[in-house]
Amino acid sequence: MNQSERDPENEQAVTPPVPRKRTGGRSARVRDAVLAATLDQVAEHGIEGLTIGDVAARAGVAETTIYRRWGTRTALVAEAVTELAAVANPAPDTGALRADLQLLAEQISQLISRPGVARLVGTTIALSVDPEVAAARHRFWNDRFERTSQVIDRAVERGELPEGTNPREVIETLSAPLYFRLLVGDEAIDDAFIARCVDNTLTLHGNCRLNH
Amino acid sequence: MNQSERDPENEQAVTPPVPRKRTGGRSARVRDAVLAATLDQVAEHGIEGLTIGDVAARAGVAETTIYRRWGTRTALVAEAVTELAAVANPAPDTGALRADLQLLAEQISQLISRPGVARLVGTTIALSVDPEVAAARHRFWNDRFERTSQVIDRAVERGELPEGTNPREVIETLSAPLYFRLLVGDEAIDDAFIARCVDNTLTLHGNCRLNH
Repeated sequence: MNQSERDPENEQAVTPPVPRKRTGGRSARVRDAVLAATLDQVAEHGIEGLTIGDVAARAGVAETTIYRRWGTRTALVAEAVTELAAVANPAPDTGALRADLQLLAEQISQLISRPGVARLVGTTIALSVDPEVAAARHRFWNDRFERTSQVIDRAVERGELPEGTNPREVIETLSAPLYFRLLVGDEAIDDAFIARCVDNTLTLHGNCRLNH
Repeated sequence: MNQSERDPENEQAVTPPVPRKRTGGRSARVRDAVLAATLDQVAEHGIEGLTIGDVAARAGVAETTIYRRWGTRTALVAEAVTELAAVANPAPDTGALRADLQLLAEQISQLISRPGVARLVGTTIALSVDPEVAAARHRFWNDRFERTSQVIDRAVERGELPEGTNPREVIETLSAPLYFRLLVGDEAIDDAFIARCVDNTLTLHGNCRLNH
């Protein structure tokens, strides 16, 4: 997902490539290069300052490649960010809820301190009257909640959380204070704060006999 | 703070007014008209689409009046929003922590569902690399935390919260899930959710003997 992973052989591919089936290597490399270039452009210019042309130039692919595959700027950004979150944040599975929540909180902390992510989060809120932005935001959060819900489901199976626990509520409890700090912007997220978020989540949702 | 409160006698004041001391009526009316116009413009166009000229025209005052009093667009927006939050959200004082927290949560819910506020919150995050926007955001949140901290201080005095409670932590616990819903954008804030935010805050911060 970073710059060094871009394929140098694509740097000069400024004419539309011959249409082909997406079978493996080149297609995947183009996708990675385009998504990485998209994140870089968003970090520097925000969604509102991003153009398909700039992304194409940065990724070394033709604009038509991007339009054919993603359709719109917003769809492109949505996939880039969803991919970033998914790759950087595999759902932890340590076998213990506390350790899983700790890893999740650390992942969120790292994600939101990444250059450009604050700008991106802010922009998705600011532009959410745009149905396409709203849809992209929905896809992103849905993907996040689905992936992280596995952590909660496994904890229920192990008896660390009560039967019938709503996974999304637990993830909300853990995530909200971290994102609130991003929103307020005055206080850094340090280890003590992450520990408090984990403790509070266990206190509010955990099976008392196990977590108190 | 709303349109109907604008002073019609200012509607035609398109030439710079004669400098005068700010003594009472007219100065306060100009301020109200300008701040109301600012909020309306932000709701419609975002901070980034707001110009002092448009605000002046909407408020019926001279641009120079705004520049002299507020200096910059960002300072103007910051004062308008801080004022909105302060006027719409007086710190509750019912004599009981649970009722105060309930009112605070309802105020936050109403504030963030107000047209334009999501856009404004998003924009302050998106543009927080700009030192002036960052400073405005800091002033806004500082004002909010200071006002709401009174609620917590009074609860400590009444023995509903432990001595040494950090007011900001309690306000964070209450506010974070509400703002997180604004950020995710998928689920409305309903009465059940507000009640859960209040319960959770009491569980995490309250004196056990009183709240459990």
